[in-house]
Amino acid sequence: MQISEIGANALIDRLTASFEGFDNRDDAALFDLKGMGVTATHLMLEGVHFDLRYMPVHHLGYKAVATTLSNLAAMNATPAYISVAIGVTAQWEVEDLETLYKGIRIATERFGVKLLGGDTAPSVAGFTIAVTAIGSADPDTVVCRKGAAPNDLICVSGNLGAAYMGLKALEREQEAYDGSSDYKHDLGDRTYLLERQLTPQPRFDIMDMLSLAGVKPTSMIDVTKGIARDLLALSQASGVGMKLYEERLPIDYETASMAEEIGINVFSAALYGGEDYELLFTVPLGFKDVIEQMEGIAIVGYVTEPGTPALLITQDGREVELKEQE
Amino acid sequence: MQISEIGANALIDRLTASFEGFDNRDDAALFDLKGMGVTATHLMLEGVHFDLRYMPVHHLGYKAVATTLSNLAAMNATPAYISVAIGVTAQWEVEDLETLYKGIRIATERFGVKLLGGDTAPSVAGFTIAVTAIGSADPDTVVCRKGAAPNDLICVSGNLGAAYMGLKALEREQEAYDGSSDYKHDLGDRTYLLERQLTPQPRFDIMDMLSLAGVKPTSMIDVTKGIARDLLALSQASGVGMKLYEERLPIDYETASMAEEIGINVFSAALYGGEDYELLFTVPLGFKDVIEQMEGIAIVGYVTEPGTPALLITQDGREVELKEQE
Repeated sequence: MQISEIGANALIDRLTASFEGFDNRDDAALFDLKGMGVTATHLMLEGVHFDLRYMPVHHLGYKAVATTLSNLAAMNATPAYISVAIGVTAQWEVEDLETLYKGIRIATERFGVKLLGGDTAPSVAGFTIAVTAIGSADPDTVVCRKGAAPNDLICVSGNLGAAYMGLKALEREQEAYDGSSDYKHDLGDRTYLLERQLTPQPRFDIMDMLSLAGVKPTSMIDVTKGIARDLLALSQASGVGMKLYEERLPIDYETASMAEEIGINVFSAALYGGEDYELLFTVPLGFKDVIEQMEGIAIVGYVTEPGTPALLITQDGREVELKEQE
Repeated sequence: MQISEIGANALIDRLTASFEGFDNRDDAALFDLKGMGVTATHLMLEGVHFDLRYMPVHHLGYKAVATTLSNLAAMNATPAYISVAIGVTAQWEVEDLETLYKGIRIATERFGVKLLGGDTAPSVAGFTIAVTAIGSADPDTVVCRKGAAPNDLICVSGNLGAAYMGLKALEREQEAYDGSSDYKHDLGDRTYLLERQLTPQPRFDIMDMLSLAGVKPTSMIDVTKGIARDLLALSQASGVGMKLYEERLPIDYETASMAEEIGINVFSAALYGGEDYELLFTVPLGFKDVIEQMEGIAIVGYVTEPGTPALLITQDGREVELKEQE
């Protein structure tokens, strides 16, 4: 059904029918918060952040929510609400938007947040989605990018480079489908990489695990631009140097296998690929034993004195300074 | 300066240097609220909501903030914070973004809100700006679209159609500049119309005036799509009929003069032009005398029984049912 055939109110009714408790027809949305508020907005644009030729629409809805919530995870905050603003091009039909909202709903249910409302506008140049998350933070446990101190350990959750390799797998599949490549394969054996690309997981579970163990990170960020760039952001915000050891980067077997298959250096993928949505954080050295016993957290380096640079120590022992423009 | 020449952090520093108290380099932004929270997001897309050939960039920044805050005015809420997400095309330079942020800053100062943070992304298809406002509302005085009751008076602040006529003046000027029209004129004598198009004012002043007089509207919306469509939204949300009298529509002399000059029916401009950002609200009949003595509020109709339609009573006495698709 064409979007122009349905009224604005009827469209909102259809899109939000399966969202429990949604009842907002107003200009703005009311919410309740306990304690300090926290908010983040993530804007995703067609042709930059996603390609609708191989990004299924329900995954786009899910990912837009999950990646926004990841910003709250990166501050050890608790999300409570989202609102969604979309710019819709002429080729989208009502059913496409329903599929998008199905993905949004799955994410809201998984992460326990409530849809508040949003904005729907026509777009003449690409599909646009901006998700705003609102939640609460405890001033005693909130973690900022600033706060890393010399000798702190640098830790990262999960593994790196898999989402980037998932993107490469989707791109290759699209080229095969276009007939612009000789490659004939199905994506069945790259399931893990595709999951990492299409359904990223904000790591609230990691924050819960650290909290239970009594570990409060001194600084934290989520890995969106690749650990090399995000580590530099931590280093700059905290005003300290850092040493990151390439050989310690956690890399999944599937990531390494795909990298080899398509001739990409797997460490480059892990350092610069981005979209990992893992947590990169620093903890005081005293927590070394505790962290080493935790499943799914790798110690990848340590913090150095103020005035020293952020360095990558390559596998062959060279020191490479991390720079913002690479 | 090209945006690629400056690092992300340095860019944020430059854009936010003149915002008092701004200090956010984190993934999300912390805020404090008293009472019930309220939020709205307004997404503006190049080619749909603005044309950069005749929308000066600082006005775009101002307007994006003002129109978002208007959503909070329409619920009788008090704004406190904004965050700004932008998608930036390749032709934008650092200085253009500084100009945009200057307009944003002027709006934050005028309306007493604080910039919390946001998101900056590259765009391949048109400039994009999404502003999210966060504020607080008093559950006893918040006003929704739902709540209009039979015999309530329908009121509107200010005047209608001026922003639309301002847009027509800008379009005509652009055509003259292109050489695609014989028109040779400057915009000097259309200052009021241009102001209404470029720097809309959320009507918090009207809510203050009503509050001081002890008047609480039973339902309210801001006029964005034109009073005909927004009245229908009030009617649908409240489940009542409405009668709107064309002859009562408040129209400024400049609006009428411009409409005559370019051969547009001024009542069509007032009914359907949109972007007025005035408040359209209903009050119990008992407030008739109070409202009639207020400067800047017009009584334009009244509410009818549930099950009756939303009607426009034209100047020649015909009844035209308002429909969503026109």
